[in-house]
Amino acid sequence: MEEVKKYLGAFNFDHVGIAVKSIEESIGFYQAMGIEDIVYETVESEGVRVAMLNLQNSSKLELLEPTNEASPIQKFLDKRGPGIHHICLRVDDIVQVMDNLKRANVRLINDEPKKGAHNMMVAFVHPKSTGGVLLEVSQKS
Amino acid sequence: MEEVKKYLGAFNFDHVGIAVKSIEESIGFYQAMGIEDIVYETVESEGVRVAMLNLQNSSKLELLEPTNEASPIQKFLDKRGPGIHHICLRVDDIVQVMDNLKRANVRLINDEPKKGAHNMMVAFVHPKSTGGVLLEVSQKS
Repeated sequence: MEEVKKYLGAFNFDHVGIAVKSIEESIGFYQAMGIEDIVYETVESEGVRVAMLNLQNSSKLELLEPTNEASPIQKFLDKRGPGIHHICLRVDDIVQVMDNLKRANVRLINDEPKKGAHNMMVAFVHPKSTGGVLLEVSQKS
Repeated sequence: MEEVKKYLGAFNFDHVGIAVKSIEESIGFYQAMGIEDIVYETVESEGVRVAMLNLQNSSKLELLEPTNEASPIQKFLDKRGPGIHHICLRVDDIVQVMDNLKRANVRLINDEPKKGAHNMMVAFVHPKSTGGVLLEVSQKS
């Protein structure tokens, strides 16, 4: 009999991704609120410029600005307007979490974890399987 | 000269609120993924039933199901469909954070912090001021 190992390890809130037309125009609100630890990065392969607003409990807000018309963020802005784009949970074993989801017939956007920014392994779950939430799962690699 | 004290203390990611038609139908996905620490609560005054999925870094996912037609969550579901409704940042001094925001002419939904669930003081920032994000700020009271 095959042993089925289910992931029951830690789930940490990693970040919320927020689609913005312009980081320059959007960042002022967060700075006015008092958030000062901000790191900027451009991920040309994903078509986004990112402002990472680091919070204290190992989590962050990510403002996502499209760098070109083909960017998924541009498509989101065109369809829904600016606002929350996705959330990301950080786990200790992304392969086992994905196994959990595959066993439950959950629709994944990528079937195997792929390399994301900052040396993270990431996978996306389709909003059809989560009730309208674009959910990213990540693991430090 | 009046001394202006700006809040530059901790910002922790507290929770993301997710509007669902039915907790019963939505919870299975999160349980299949491996999240097992779940607490249920009904807040009749807000017209919501809540499933709190506790994560490890002092943060949580909150599934929000309307309990009646007048519920703000029912209105959100009618307008946008199920999905991410709001995010909440936990701070050490909500009054000072609100002062920061008032000085920046940010539009607040409630001008003074009000009592929320679990002995938290809470305030909501209007999405018009945040670029489409309904943002809750909370403090343990």
